[in-house]
Amino acid sequence: MSAPHRRRRPPGDRGGGEGDALGGEQVEGRRAVRELLVAGRRRVRQVWLAEEAGPSPVLREIASVAAARRVALRTVSREQLGAVARTDSHQGVVARAEPVPEADLDELCQTTGPPPFLVGLGGVTDPHNLGAVLRTALGAGATGAVLPRHRAVHLTPAATKAAAGAVEHLPVAVVPGLPAALRVMRDHGVWTVGLDAAGRQSIYGLDLVTEPVVLVLGSEGTGLSRLVRERCDVVAVVPQHGPLGSLNVAAAAAVGCFEVARHRSGA
Amino acid sequence: MSAPHRRRRPPGDRGGGEGDALGGEQVEGRRAVRELLVAGRRRVRQVWLAEEAGPSPVLREIASVAAARRVALRTVSREQLGAVARTDSHQGVVARAEPVPEADLDELCQTTGPPPFLVGLGGVTDPHNLGAVLRTALGAGATGAVLPRHRAVHLTPAATKAAAGAVEHLPVAVVPGLPAALRVMRDHGVWTVGLDAAGRQSIYGLDLVTEPVVLVLGSEGTGLSRLVRERCDVVAVVPQHGPLGSLNVAAAAAVGCFEVARHRSGA
Repeated sequence: MSAPHRRRRPPGDRGGGEGDALGGEQVEGRRAVRELLVAGRRRVRQVWLAEEAGPSPVLREIASVAAARRVALRTVSREQLGAVARTDSHQGVVARAEPVPEADLDELCQTTGPPPFLVGLGGVTDPHNLGAVLRTALGAGATGAVLPRHRAVHLTPAATKAAAGAVEHLPVAVVPGLPAALRVMRDHGVWTVGLDAAGRQSIYGLDLVTEPVVLVLGSEGTGLSRLVRERCDVVAVVPQHGPLGSLNVAAAAAVGCFEVARHRSGA
Repeated sequence: MSAPHRRRRPPGDRGGGEGDALGGEQVEGRRAVRELLVAGRRRVRQVWLAEEAGPSPVLREIASVAAARRVALRTVSREQLGAVARTDSHQGVVARAEPVPEADLDELCQTTGPPPFLVGLGGVTDPHNLGAVLRTALGAGATGAVLPRHRAVHLTPAATKAAAGAVEHLPVAVVPGLPAALRVMRDHGVWTVGLDAAGRQSIYGLDLVTEPVVLVLGSEGTGLSRLVRERCDVVAVVPQHGPLGSLNVAAAAAVGCFEVARHRSGA
């Protein structure tokens, strides 16, 4: 295998997640690569470690799990790693793997365990926000996420880095359009709760979140689209203080998801 | 005034916030610059707008408020703006201003309005995380933030961008060390609540948050330091689901701050 900086990449392949596919082929950063290897849900093609990365328990664990799984592991210079990395925050480790498999929307609505708790994202374009939302959702007990196929960021290297391994565990469905997907979810008995600065009902104490529910978040700039808003059973708001009046989408997702978790736990 | 890309910058001046000072001299991005001008809390020296930025209500508002406040406004090429900008996400606008004034810790503990609600950060190093925490804290009704002078990021351009204007409103005190500051706060009757993945008490329903309180968050990698943990009246946790076991510091701050807000609102 040639050194990573000489590797030829077809035009447009920047590590997955830029186009209509879900992506996730390139994973960067210690937590994300560790979780990719430990979860073992998809085949890992190659792991590159920077030789100057220094001793680190996580890097040692990555090397040992890669060896156990017979994944090709190459130690390269920091310069070579920088040439193959797509983020500035690779922390000395980059992996290439099969894409993250897409989940089926109907299956996400029909779990046999606790009532489905889904997160729908209506056009998030910043990969850090997408990754942060997926990580937070998983930590709050979400059972799946739903992303639109077009005009939304998918699992780019920056998104998988920010997700810190959450993409290895949280099923993600990619749908042609979020409004139609909300109709499908409602047909499965899932309550659709939009979260928007213009919502008229407080997110706190929404009793319906103990039932099957999808929490729907809009894009960074403009919130929920009109069509998505119309398809929601409830449009709720995180009550704001101060002069700014709105939250970043990742912060809104954190508050919303953990409010569902709190309410379901009875706390 | 010469074009921004020819401006000489003393060594180490990368827009403020990299050293021991609080910083905030360079502000980038539409929301952040708009709020800098509208709040009017500190003198703005110059605003640069990219001529190719296109029509935008926020940019028009920035131009009109800058004119009303007699702030020098220069339209430059996108290339020139890129040369003066310190982030990739300047959205066509960069401003230079006086540094954000540092707040006094004792005054933060003695507000006459609602009970103080402070956020203490024990060594956050990612400017996006710092900015996100400040924005979220303000939205949750926090009355101030406390940062250590050393070994922590301050108000770099990336931090003020992520804060989206929150630094113009939320008082920030910079202290020699967080453990000593926690003792000062306790002496003022402020409850110290650490937030950590290893906390033994759930953050939900902590009744003391209706009294004067500081919510203390640790660094991205290692959480609360031993000394900070020992100085806390309570170390609480956001109960986690899933295999990852911890939240990003900005997400933990969002859940913690809005739990204080929810509890104080009686919801």
